[in-house]
Amino acid sequence: MIDNKAFYKLSYGLYVVSSIASGRKNGQIANTVFQITSDPLTVAVSINKSNLTHEYIQRSRLIGVSALSEKTPIPFIGRFGFKSGRDIDKFDGVDFKMGESGVPIVLENTTSYFELQVEKEVDTSTHTIFICKVLNAEVIDDSNAMTYKYYQEVKQGRVSRPSVESDVKTSDGKSKYMCQICGYIYNPAVGDETSGIAAGTAFEDLPSNWQCPVCKVSKDEFKKID
Amino acid sequence: MIDNKAFYKLSYGLYVVSSIASGRKNGQIANTVFQITSDPLTVAVSINKSNLTHEYIQRSRLIGVSALSEKTPIPFIGRFGFKSGRDIDKFDGVDFKMGESGVPIVLENTTSYFELQVEKEVDTSTHTIFICKVLNAEVIDDSNAMTYKYYQEVKQGRVSRPSVESDVKTSDGKSKYMCQICGYIYNPAVGDETSGIAAGTAFEDLPSNWQCPVCKVSKDEFKKID
Repeated sequence: MIDNKAFYKLSYGLYVVSSIASGRKNGQIANTVFQITSDPLTVAVSINKSNLTHEYIQRSRLIGVSALSEKTPIPFIGRFGFKSGRDIDKFDGVDFKMGESGVPIVLENTTSYFELQVEKEVDTSTHTIFICKVLNAEVIDDSNAMTYKYYQEVKQGRVSRPSVESDVKTSDGKSKYMCQICGYIYNPAVGDETSGIAAGTAFEDLPSNWQCPVCKVSKDEFKKID
Repeated sequence: MIDNKAFYKLSYGLYVVSSIASGRKNGQIANTVFQITSDPLTVAVSINKSNLTHEYIQRSRLIGVSALSEKTPIPFIGRFGFKSGRDIDKFDGVDFKMGESGVPIVLENTTSYFELQVEKEVDTSTHTIFICKVLNAEVIDDSNAMTYKYYQEVKQGRVSRPSVESDVKTSDGKSKYMCQICGYIYNPAVGDETSGIAAGTAFEDLPSNWQCPVCKVSKDEFKKID
């Protein structure tokens, strides 16, 4: 018997994992970054094979990791987590630096960062675990690190969880839409009380000046998710 | 430049990882347990090669993981974290069950547990990462999961951190001693205010009826750590 809720009791942090290839930078949100050994210092990072950052890591063998602060605004996480680097330059307007190794490192909302060099790749069905040597590690500020749990709690009540399957099912045939900036999901069965939108209102029937209740972008930034 | 404090910003949970070989059970505390893929359900566990549990896992290919509750008493963590299964039966007096796969699973102070079957081993310098298929997963109770950070915070002020190197250095030639039950470190430079022991008192000079200020065991349970 496998109860999926058992997995909610595993604890993770929240990170921007970045890389570069042929001069093109990209970064994404990840939650599985962990130290494996302390002598030598080894860190493992698990990344979905279909992501652009995965491709860049395999080409450059370099990884930047920024451990996000608890104070990180949700739209910032949305930018790195729900947009694809194939469509936008995620670093545009974001505070970052090029590390000594040549990997880009996000500094905004970062408590500490790491520059890593891939030493080993472990292939699993959908993800690669990159086992890495630590080239550089620095503390940026001493705020608390954001945990995945805390991130979900901050979003709770205001934002649905895109990772939970039941959140992306249709209700009475009307589709849900996700904000590509912050990850907010508009659920027609619920509506949007903050804007006076009644439960049962289809996304298509929302007024054209309706905005994302979390990050205030327009309807154009939403994408159908089922 | 590598600042070790940067690693404190990585987030982990706190788990009892258990296994069995030739009918002998063992378990230990670990903080690196994480889901790698969801289809198929895959979980990775990193274990120090010198630990007895590591030996049992390699022999049986079975792992039990108990995600500890935030309410877990520190001495319980000490039992699984600071004692060796080579010296005591850690399961003696502890609430556990034998899982369907034959692996022992700690139920006490557990929010959810997993039965895992090893599918792949990744060798790193001091640790093995076991990549595992999930056989069973169940929620025991819905309390919050203990994080490694929370565990350190609970201990703060009362218990030193055995993982921080500066904690285990001698002061003026007098040795520190660690409680093998709960992990409390007696530091002669600090003494033990709760029992009226002045700073500068060597462990050897403590009265014979002195007790661990955290878990109340006798001096016999302490071991010199430097």
